[in-house]
Amino acid sequence: MIHAGSPENFRGGLLLHQRSKPKTEPIKTFSKTIALLAITLAGFTNIQAQDLLPSWNDGPTKQAIVDFVKATTETGGAKFVAPEERIATFDQDGTLWVEHPMYSQVMYCLHRVGVLVKEKPELKDVEPFKTVLSGDREAIGKLTMPDLEKILMATLTGMSTEQFQAEVKQWFAEAKDPRWHKPYNELTYQPMQEVMKYLRANGYKTYICTGGGQDFVRVYAEQTYGIPPEQIVGTMGGTTYGYDKDGKPFLTKDPKMLLNDNNGGKPEGIHLMIGRRPHAAFGNSPGDQQMLEYTKAGDGARLAMLVLHDDAKREYAYGPAQGLPDTKVGTFPQALYDKAKKEGWTAISMKDDWKKIFAFEE
Amino acid sequence: MIHAGSPENFRGGLLLHQRSKPKTEPIKTFSKTIALLAITLAGFTNIQAQDLLPSWNDGPTKQAIVDFVKATTETGGAKFVAPEERIATFDQDGTLWVEHPMYSQVMYCLHRVGVLVKEKPELKDVEPFKTVLSGDREAIGKLTMPDLEKILMATLTGMSTEQFQAEVKQWFAEAKDPRWHKPYNELTYQPMQEVMKYLRANGYKTYICTGGGQDFVRVYAEQTYGIPPEQIVGTMGGTTYGYDKDGKPFLTKDPKMLLNDNNGGKPEGIHLMIGRRPHAAFGNSPGDQQMLEYTKAGDGARLAMLVLHDDAKREYAYGPAQGLPDTKVGTFPQALYDKAKKEGWTAISMKDDWKKIFAFEE
Repeated sequence: MIHAGSPENFRGGLLLHQRSKPKTEPIKTFSKTIALLAITLAGFTNIQAQDLLPSWNDGPTKQAIVDFVKATTETGGAKFVAPEERIATFDQDGTLWVEHPMYSQVMYCLHRVGVLVKEKPELKDVEPFKTVLSGDREAIGKLTMPDLEKILMATLTGMSTEQFQAEVKQWFAEAKDPRWHKPYNELTYQPMQEVMKYLRANGYKTYICTGGGQDFVRVYAEQTYGIPPEQIVGTMGGTTYGYDKDGKPFLTKDPKMLLNDNNGGKPEGIHLMIGRRPHAAFGNSPGDQQMLEYTKAGDGARLAMLVLHDDAKREYAYGPAQGLPDTKVGTFPQALYDKAKKEGWTAISMKDDWKKIFAFEE
Repeated sequence: MIHAGSPENFRGGLLLHQRSKPKTEPIKTFSKTIALLAITLAGFTNIQAQDLLPSWNDGPTKQAIVDFVKATTETGGAKFVAPEERIATFDQDGTLWVEHPMYSQVMYCLHRVGVLVKEKPELKDVEPFKTVLSGDREAIGKLTMPDLEKILMATLTGMSTEQFQAEVKQWFAEAKDPRWHKPYNELTYQPMQEVMKYLRANGYKTYICTGGGQDFVRVYAEQTYGIPPEQIVGTMGGTTYGYDKDGKPFLTKDPKMLLNDNNGGKPEGIHLMIGRRPHAAFGNSPGDQQMLEYTKAGDGARLAMLVLHDDAKREYAYGPAQGLPDTKVGTFPQALYDKAKKEGWTAISMKDDWKKIFAFEE
């Protein structure tokens, strides 16, 4: 049932865009710089890609991005998109940064269990907390979804929004991933950072659209990706307004889910938070499928891209598309390939399309 | 129990700000214009108010706005607010436009009942639809909140988001209010339009934070206020992702409320949609109290303003503060005055502070 896909053929088959080289315009004088700046800010021209996508190998994938931006920003062009309609959405885990061996938010929650049992010692013999505290990675890896939900609810709700922000901020400043031993914000994919900057330079508003917690991602997204809190769409929990003993108002994070921002929840979350259909969307797993098809179903030029984890050496290779067994995160099944091919999505091969994956690489 | 407030004293007592005159800087050359533009776009200076608030009478209320903007945009000042933190939220009904004799969204829903019974004739003898169809204004005015909820659910949900947008757009293009016989978007308060433009010129992002339906307000807000869909926080309904018979994806509006954006729901909605505390908030009724106190409870310079409906001639005078009986919309009780005084909110007297209320006035 699981087939090893051929990334090269896959990408070739999906490309819709022309392969013309973008033109450069030499900038000679200060006044010209200012004029260009003014025009750009008004969203009426496109910024060239040469210097903005240095970590991308030349080829059809990079060209698909460049062609999309050119087509949608060329004044008078048939596919011109008004500046206010330039919305691009990015899944986070596996699309913007490493999601193996476990989502960083799950790492955070496991860490918080330790803090939690100090406050409530009666929990230390109660499952699933007992398993988490055991440190037995294999057993932790086998926790069921209801177990994980219990852990998430216990560690992500019940405190004020400000206390939560402080806790996440502190963890994020100290935590390191288990393979590279680096802070998580150094494990973002440099080529994706470049795509976001390139889109922003061309008047696009970049949003994260993640299955992760909206409040969690907001804590570090501005520093990590240059994306402000109001442009994070994630799994949303409710809050309750109240007052402390001095009458000062605050919001408490509730154990009530308003929207699960996965699968169909992604377009639902995009509608709720943005109210416009994206013109470009980037994902890597079945949870992104609906966001990509919703994006692609709009009129005019639409870009849908899938990051393919096919580089075991520099990152990870996983998912049925690699002929590898299914994993808890980031599966990329044959059905999604087929869908992608049919609908004209573009796959990004980490192995072939990216000169470097991380900024810290030499 | 109900006292007639004195707007002049009220405003005088609430003002926190200095009354220094803003300085102007003559602009002499084109290059200086460009430099100023560049600096402004970067959010490091403040745009002067003289030409941007022409519908405001000089006085402490206008000065409070000007002083707030000066303080928060002056580089190096003690109350400087970073550009990305410049968030201002505005209630809509009664704050940005007329809410009497009935919210425009309620007018829309009553109108849609007529369309609905054509599709489902069995509803015409069922309450509350029967009362709506009778056209008896007095009886309609007596509909209870559960009745109104039934009407809202029946007319605002069950269709695709795109169909809903088209229906609202069409109604909005044709509907006229019963007193001035003008389209609703001509019944916005000109001085508030100016405040929003003035704030935006100084790097503030302006948001609507309304008890009205988020999807409803989004349809006309860009045209009416220059506020894009992603900056509308309102009462939020769920949607469900699905496919039409040709496999094309779409979102259906569900009869499920995710967040009631009134009272404590306003700060909850602001947290959900923006993830930052506003530095300025504007309201007119008890439903805005929590948004104003949440705004005011933040550090540094915060502006909280209440629009006072005290101009029976040019608009309406209503609410207990005017010694008038309570009404269904926009009440402004003594308790809110007291709260406002204690917390340093600024009241806006439509009668005294506004030279003109509507753009169409001579």
